[in-house]
Amino acid sequence: MKVNELLKQFKFIKEIDKLKYIQRKTKLFNSDRHENDAEHSWHLAMMVLVLAEHSNEPIDVLKVLKMVLIHDIVEIDAGDTFLYDTTKNHVNTDEEFIAAQRIFGILPPNQTQEFIDIWLEFEEGKSNEAKFAKTMDRLQPILQNRSNQGGTWTEFNVSYETVFEKVKGIQKGSESIWQYTTSELNEAFGRN
Amino acid sequence: MKVNELLKQFKFIKEIDKLKYIQRKTKLFNSDRHENDAEHSWHLAMMVLVLAEHSNEPIDVLKVLKMVLIHDIVEIDAGDTFLYDTTKNHVNTDEEFIAAQRIFGILPPNQTQEFIDIWLEFEEGKSNEAKFAKTMDRLQPILQNRSNQGGTWTEFNVSYETVFEKVKGIQKGSESIWQYTTSELNEAFGRN
Ligand SMILES: [Ca+2]
Repeated sequence: MKVNELLKQFKFIKEIDKLKYIQRKTKLFNSDRHENDAEHSWHLAMMVLVLAEHSNEPIDVLKVLKMVLIHDIVEIDAGDTFLYDTTKNHVNTDEEFIAAQRIFGILPPNQTQEFIDIWLEFEEGKSNEAKFAKTMDRLQPILQNRSNQGGTWTEFNVSYETVFEKVKGIQKGSESIWQYTTSELNEAFGRN
Repeated sequence: MKVNELLKQFKFIKEIDKLKYIQRKTKLFNSDRHENDAEHSWHLAMMVLVLAEHSNEPIDVLKVLKMVLIHDIVEIDAGDTFLYDTTKNHVNTDEEFIAAQRIFGILPPNQTQEFIDIWLEFEEGKSNEAKFAKTMDRLQPILQNRSNQGGTWTEFNVSYETVFEKVKGIQKGSESIWQYTTSELNEAFGRN
């Protein structure tokens, strides 16, 4: 039995419980209740299972699941970065990299490396898996905002052009989901 | 483009948002805040990723992930069943099966069938994947209760023998996790 590994893994499992306290700007469907990062990550994982067939390119579903399950864990230390926060840049920051090293560093070394690599691949957004994972991450708040009379777009007065710019990466992961998205955005912003 | 499929899938993605409102009896680590089913499911998925190497038998990790991600979705209609509720039986009830048919039935037919099959395989608990998924589902509240001065065991006055009986299935999924669990239970109930 690998007792030492097991103790490190349990410590990590306990540490990541904190993701349940990281509040996002977006709210649940038809709701005033903010979503937290753990709920968000579960929802993205379900979306991967359900929508994988719409990926532009063949994808390793297990890898995409790993990406969406862990993608926000760095926010335990670094905090949630709101997509439309203009004061922050959104490329993975030093702060996030230090967080990844600390939190994934709780695990046995081979798992530390695996999780950091997967997180970096997601952040980079170049592989087919990362593109699809990012498509899910962009799509989910659109669906939520649509159910909440514009949600964060209305609340923070975000323009159609800004939203379009931020979410157009959806196209890289799935053309069919992008077609749906553009028609939803047009409707939301009264451009139909 | 499969527009019809996509619309059904989006409807399902919206419907399962309700899992975030299903409150469990157990609480977050070192906390008074109840956990909800979506957070719980995310946490189990992370545990699968981290602990898979401790499975007694080789497992298809993707399938185990599917199981833990969807295993509680029926509770949107059927409600949370508390492990130590003596007034309910815990084999999958008619109510849960009807819930599975309604909720997974929102999806395109091939996905409806896939999700019901995976949920039933989990409930049955016989395959290697189901055994390991159930091991995660039994383990997580033990870790939480240990961090909360006995948590639900103390709150609902559950005896060592009852806990032991309910969680001994952990052994079927992982001998090494079971060894750890028994020593934790012995400590929690002052049997060392
Ligand atoms: Ca984020």
